[in-house]
Amino acid sequence: MRAVVIEQYGDPKAVLSVRDIPTPEPRGGEVLIKMAASPINPSDVVFVEGNYGYRKTLPAIPGSEGVGTVVAANAGVYGRWLVGKRVSCAAPDNGGGTWAEYMTCSAMACAPLRASTSLEFGAMLLANPVTAVSLVAMAQRHSRGGFIQTAAGSALGRMTARWARHRGVLAIHVVRSEAAAAMLRAAGEDYVLVSSAPDFDDQLAALARGLNATIAFDAVGGAMTRQLATALPRGGRVVVFGGLSGEAAQLDVRDAVFEAKSIEGFWLPFEIRRIGTLGLLRRVATVQRMGEAMFGAPVLARLPYERIGEAIALQPRGTEGKVLLVP
Amino acid sequence: MRAVVIEQYGDPKAVLSVRDIPTPEPRGGEVLIKMAASPINPSDVVFVEGNYGYRKTLPAIPGSEGVGTVVAANAGVYGRWLVGKRVSCAAPDNGGGTWAEYMTCSAMACAPLRASTSLEFGAMLLANPVTAVSLVAMAQRHSRGGFIQTAAGSALGRMTARWARHRGVLAIHVVRSEAAAAMLRAAGEDYVLVSSAPDFDDQLAALARGLNATIAFDAVGGAMTRQLATALPRGGRVVVFGGLSGEAAQLDVRDAVFEAKSIEGFWLPFEIRRIGTLGLLRRVATVQRMGEAMFGAPVLARLPYERIGEAIALQPRGTEGKVLLVP
Repeated sequence: MRAVVIEQYGDPKAVLSVRDIPTPEPRGGEVLIKMAASPINPSDVVFVEGNYGYRKTLPAIPGSEGVGTVVAANAGVYGRWLVGKRVSCAAPDNGGGTWAEYMTCSAMACAPLRASTSLEFGAMLLANPVTAVSLVAMAQRHSRGGFIQTAAGSALGRMTARWARHRGVLAIHVVRSEAAAAMLRAAGEDYVLVSSAPDFDDQLAALARGLNATIAFDAVGGAMTRQLATALPRGGRVVVFGGLSGEAAQLDVRDAVFEAKSIEGFWLPFEIRRIGTLGLLRRVATVQRMGEAMFGAPVLARLPYERIGEAIALQPRGTEGKVLLVP
Repeated sequence: MRAVVIEQYGDPKAVLSVRDIPTPEPRGGEVLIKMAASPINPSDVVFVEGNYGYRKTLPAIPGSEGVGTVVAANAGVYGRWLVGKRVSCAAPDNGGGTWAEYMTCSAMACAPLRASTSLEFGAMLLANPVTAVSLVAMAQRHSRGGFIQTAAGSALGRMTARWARHRGVLAIHVVRSEAAAAMLRAAGEDYVLVSSAPDFDDQLAALARGLNATIAFDAVGGAMTRQLATALPRGGRVVVFGGLSGEAAQLDVRDAVFEAKSIEGFWLPFEIRRIGTLGLLRRVATVQRMGEAMFGAPVLARLPYERIGEAIALQPRGTEGKVLLVP
């Protein structure tokens, strides 16, 4: 089968290649999926660079989610039932990846698609939508009121905003550019702040107080994490799930000591372990039921494996749309 | 009565003065204490600078703990029982302070002294010893094994080390100087690291793993917080209780996201609220029972209120001993 492969971790421009390798066979509990499409998520690039939360044994196939058809099963009732069905699937943390013609994974890592779910939507049903659902659920569990999110203009940020609004959870959206702010306001968001505004800190603190937001989701790190914590009321938590600034997250010592504020992290695999397979399937069902209007993201390009270099180069334009790899 | 007073918050050298002011009268639930001695804690200096967790209405009397004799009560059974007794007492967060001839405070903020407890020990029974007991208790509750502490050469650090050893809790002690390391090793501590050592990070990670230390208590902030978090195993927590570096605490985003590590704060007033008055009295009883060999600190100087400037100037030499103010 054709697959995108890395022989070593490093700069994606240097380490990614396309090769013919043996088609894998499903082991006990696994299914074999003929892949139809898979997105390039920012976390996939981090994985290729060797900086993700796990490393696979080399050579390895990147790609963490995708869509395909189950063509064989070496599993129980659920696995056999999946044969012939279109599924959204997640790659194992040490095994195959979705950037290949075929992938084996646990039957439990597959969610069958509804007839109404398009191939494009099915390819990116997990990483962003399930994160959005999880973050809003965390806000509902832990915040006394609303929440703050940074990088709100990203595909993930926008679906988190839509889902929060649908669930009646108030949200404060932080973006870097006026263009992103205008986009969110046009989408109906009331509380949008541009982080470069001179009175940003004061506005953020006033809104956090007004909306009783005691939790913030931060994809930026560095000084932004500190600003978020300072803006939150006493006991506020900043949940970091990305590091766009490239810098360590900061927390003012006075905020930690005298205000009982804290920083922690969010990583989808831990959340999935927490909610279990059934919890995940329930969230994926919610995502499919709500559909693309809520949880979809535009597709910027659809490229074959052979054009992986081009595809990777397009990935940073994630706000415009996702890049899909197709066999 | 004579009292040390601030009219405004700021540089202690500029804002502290000694004045004659009316002796306070105990309100409902309160006792009147004739103060005998009170220490200058680092947190008192932070309070005078206006950077502590609370500000009192000005003019205000600083001083958060001390020793004295209850001379009047306007309180229930416990308050009346205290009259004539020597007590260790904590100042209210908006009211009098211990740097005065007399102070009123809630009867519940007074712990009677054992006959064996000296005046000097009684003056500093709360802030450091109760913090040491609280940190070790937190390690026992939350760590799978031992703990790490920074600023281990300080008066607080040394009593935390002694108490942990007594309780059979393994501890890794981080200090800045070889001299402090030698002092701790001479006191019987096995795991002492100097943070400027070239292989500090590796040694710290190896010890944390070896002792299964999943919690760290940090008085430094800045990059040290990040180094501690990185050294801890997955799920590790850094509890910040001071900011000697003057910099915001840092947390590597990868540690937060992929390793479920976090930063939070510790502040004794929150801990006392958590454990309640009875819990506090129990910890103070433990401190007195163990005595000065465990929880005492040397006294560097004993100065009258009139020499407050001199006393404040001596405070940074806390590792040598505490400065006590006496009427």
